[in-house]
Parts: sequence; C-alpha cells; structure tokens
Amino acid sequence: MQSANRELPEPPYYIAVFTSRLSPNTDGYSDTAERMNRLASEQPGFLGMDSVRDGLGITVSYWRDEESIAAWRRHAEHTIARETGRQRWYDSFEVHVAEVKRRYGFRRAPEGSAEHDR
Amino acid sequence: MQSANRELPEPPYYIAVFTSRLSPNTDGYSDTAERMNRLASEQPGFLGMDSVRDGLGITVSYWRDEESIAAWRRHAEHTIARETGRQRWYDSFEVHVAEVKRRYGFRRAPEGSAEHDR
Repeated sequence: MQSANRELPEPPYYIAVFTSRLSPNTDGYSDTAERMNRLASEQPGFLGMDSVRDGLGITVSYWRDEESIAAWRRHAEHTIARETGRQRWYDSFEVHVAEVKRRYGFRRAPEGSAEHDR
Repeated sequence: MQSANRELPEPPYYIAVFTSRLSPNTDGYSDTAERMNRLASEQPGFLGMDSVRDGLGITVSYWRDEESIAAWRRHAEHTIARETGRQRWYDSFEVHVAEVKRRYGFRRAPEGSAEHDR
C-alpha cells in the first residue's frame, strides 16, 4: 500500500507516524503487514494511510481522535502482530501519536497550470 | 537523507509530515531537496528528520515547537524552493503540522534479545 484514497476532515484529527527498520528475518512479514493495513482501515475512526519503505519505512495513518488510535493499539490481532514484529521482523521502530493542528497542500491542475487547493 | 541521528526530547514537541508525488519534471529537484534538508537542520528548534521516497515521498521533521515550524516555512530560500516545487517538481504535496502527544518505540538489543526502550 502506498496511499489510500482518503478524504480528510478539517483539523483537528490525529496521526500515528510509524517509522521502522526491518531485521534480516522478514519471513511472513509482508503478509502480516498487508493484513494489518487492511484491518486498520476497517477500524472505527480510521481516515486513511500513507506508507513507503526504502530501507527505512514510514507509515502515516490518519484517525478521527486519540481514542481510535488507542483502540487499534489494543486490538487483539494487532497486539499479536506487534509482538511478533518485536521478536522477529524489526530491528527498531518508533511510533509518534500527534494531534493535527494545520494542514495545507497543493495539487497540480490537470491542464498543467498550478493551483493551490487550500 | 533517510534518518538523521537524533535525540528527541520527551513530548510535547511538534512534527511536520510532508507527503508528495513528483511530476515528470525533476530537473534540479534533488540538489534543492538536499540543500533544503541541510538548511532545515540548521534552523532553531529543529530536532531531526526521517525521509523516504519510493514513488510517494514521506518526510517527517521533528521540531521543538509550532513557531519553529512556522519560522522555517517563512524562511526566504525555503519559500522560493517551495514555489519552484509548485511550478515544476510536484504533482501534489500535503503538509500536516501536529503536536506530538506520545511516543513509544523498540530497539533490538545488540546480542539479539529484544528489549523495549520505553
């Protein structure tokens, strides 16, 4: 997954930023990662996700509120996957939970003329 | 740049999450991106940066407070680079400015036994 189709509300909402480095032992990792991304997207309060890996991995998930993130963290299958990640897949990871204060962006207009979207 | 060496303080601090997709016209992009990363790291309040691109690009920068991010956004050379990015390099980008509430992580112990760092 790179970027889910997503329609974010106006701030405030929450993001969870997951940065990680894989260990040499990635048996079963990609299936579980895919399953976790799908499961996350079905959780109450999930708004979207952007994910990239090239050595370092960064996944940003967008959530309605802090409680939605906490509930996903407590999810039984996610808890087991995270534990396997610690035992096997990751050399290191870090999670930042943060409240979005401002968002701005830019999208190129189809005909090529630049246009601010906000 | 992937991940700067960084020693983050205890929350609260701030993050700026920059997600982007490049246009086909990337002439001069990588030199400017490198220069901007170096300049950012010299700004007051800068704490660190993680950056990955594989099609989608995600750069997370860590800052002492919201004002440090706002000052960097107003920085003259950064403003010019951003404008060139809109005109030329990016098909789209999005910036989230967010206040970090919690951080947790994991780092594998050197001998292979897993250990929580927090």
